[in-house]
Amino acid sequence: MKKPLIVGVMGGGLADDTAYEEACKLGKLIAENGWILLNGGRNSGIMDASAKGAADAGGLTIGILPDDHDNRVSEHIQVPILTGMGNARNCINVLSSNVIVACSGGAGTISEIALALKTGKTVICLKFDTGTLFASFEKTGQLLHVTTSEEVVSSIKRQTLSNKIRI
Amino acid sequence: MKKPLIVGVMGGGLADDTAYEEACKLGKLIAENGWILLNGGRNSGIMDASAKGAADAGGLTIGILPDDHDNRVSEHIQVPILTGMGNARNCINVLSSNVIVACSGGAGTISEIALALKTGKTVICLKFDTGTLFASFEKTGQLLHVTTSEEVVSSIKRQTLSNKIRI
Amino acid sequence: MKKPLIVGVMGGGLADDTAYEEACKLGKLIAENGWILLNGGRNSGIMDASAKGAADAGGLTIGILPDDHDNRVSEHIQVPILTGMGNARNCINVLSSNVIVACSGGAGTISEIALALKTGKTVICLKFDTGTLFASFEKTGQLLHVTTSEEVVSSIKRQTLSNKIRI
Amino acid sequence: MKKPLIVGVMGGGLADDTAYEEACKLGKLIAENGWILLNGGRNSGIMDASAKGAADAGGLTIGILPDDHDNRVSEHIQVPILTGMGNARNCINVLSSNVIVACSGGAGTISEIALALKTGKTVICLKFDTGTLFASFEKTGQLLHVTTSEEVVSSIKRQTLSNKIRI
Repeated sequence: MKKPLIVGVMGGGLADDTAYEEACKLGKLIAENGWILLNGGRNSGIMDASAKGAADAGGLTIGILPDDHDNRVSEHIQVPILTGMGNARNCINVLSSNVIVACSGGAGTISEIALALKTGKTVICLKFDTGTLFASFEKTGQLLHVTTSEEVVSSIKRQTLSNKIRI
Repeated sequence: MKKPLIVGVMGGGLADDTAYEEACKLGKLIAENGWILLNGGRNSGIMDASAKGAADAGGLTIGILPDDHDNRVSEHIQVPILTGMGNARNCINVLSSNVIVACSGGAGTISEIALALKTGKTVICLKFDTGTLFASFEKTGQLLHVTTSEEVVSSIKRQTLSNKIRI
Repeated sequence: MKKPLIVGVMGGGLADDTAYEEACKLGKLIAENGWILLNGGRNSGIMDASAKGAADAGGLTIGILPDDHDNRVSEHIQVPILTGMGNARNCINVLSSNVIVACSGGAGTISEIALALKTGKTVICLKFDTGTLFASFEKTGQLLHVTTSEEVVSSIKRQTLSNKIRI
Repeated sequence: MKKPLIVGVMGGGLADDTAYEEACKLGKLIAENGWILLNGGRNSGIMDASAKGAADAGGLTIGILPDDHDNRVSEHIQVPILTGMGNARNCINVLSSNVIVACSGGAGTISEIALALKTGKTVICLKFDTGTLFASFEKTGQLLHVTTSEEVVSSIKRQTLSNKIRI
């Protein structure tokens, strides 16, 4: 059985209309490429948007929830994993994804970028300015910056071909 | 979107031929009923057997791994969730499943039975003798004992209808 | 620096007067032997009792809380470790203790006995009847049953001398 | 019983001589103020240095280890908490500390800064340049930057008096 790529989409629980639309589009493209979408699973912001985009396009959506109950699960998540571990679930997001895409977000999303980089995963920032903090990872190409969902997809394809993303 | 039932199948990393066959059959029946199979994800014992049965029958298989790498993932697991948390992942298994089936196993499986009962989940033991330890849960019907995979399925259906298993 | 022994005392959040008194006495003896007491940290039942006994006798008390806040910490816990991980903290209790004592408790305590046995730790049950479930561990002497706190202490001393408890 | 302040000192597993000396001094000052030192517990870099400084000055040192074994515990840690959870233990570090001090470090330390800020904790960066990434937290005073261990101490005292650090 060939394993499909798991794309982790990280981002905040709050998102303005533009960010919501972009995350929705990203989810759609992930599904259309036959990849699995994994995110934080809640019914708000980037989590809800990316799950909606992927599920509407027929893709499989996995949500790794911080909660021990399903009151806040996005309706677009097909497999909710309830961790009951709060932010510690961010580590599971990162370990379980073959590549991480960071969308609009705050401190939680930054923690996921940092954990992913520490774990050796490729991180693609979609309009997420990380300042100078991760310059060493930008130099080696482990941290990439793009401005459209289409570029996210082409980056993932390129990195997969060159084995920088490991499935 | 109607959520499918997630059935957690717990059991040891070692299994003799009879236990392996039974777990394989259980996985098959879970898939044939349109349910998702969730287990500990490794490539051995009850985990491998139940995943094989479900995947071969066209079902979706989720594995919650204790490891932070995929070296020991069963090839029959379609979505490996890497927790990197050792036995702490047992709690995630329990929280993420709508009902728990305990197959042949040792201390790890007993910990999952105990955690599931504490969390209020229905636990169905398939030829797993728990002695007198959980008698109070047997009295209330939260802990059930059966001897065939077919009985597991009919128990799940009955409990779902009576809302004792919550989806 | 010689490390002091860490004794993990597990038990329920509810305890009748007899169980409370016994756990209090156990905590006192642990402190008087110069050992560190580690437990689940909450302000009720065996957790509160064993911490009170140890702290009143001048010992060091560590509580591994399931919560992400300190609203339910026992006042007798000197070092509260807030995990925010619910029952997953049971694994930390077990890993961090050199030996586990199981007092009166329910499913949560049983999960800790099971996890400790799986991890290779010696478990001493103080008036905790585990039925036939862990018979194989009783045979090897990894699981012991005693009826007084004094016997817990003498068991720990004997096992430490014979290197069955590893510091 | 009045609880002592728990100061979490975060920083990399690698540290040059200057950073090691500074972390050692910081640990010493923490102990001299009667505070408990909490860190990641390993026998290298900022973890080892800050534990050594605190322990040599007679303070209590708590280490929250990522490992499930004690092979890599600093000898200056008096209470090693073995989580077996890898980087997920970073969340425990943050939740269990009343205030976080970030010393020289990499992506792991950045994840702890981010998690602490998300959790509402005050973070004091000791010669740790975070660029523009956390500007909003700098504006509100939740994230502070200082250049000496003495300034860390005076910041903690000031913040405690004004109840920005909660014990």
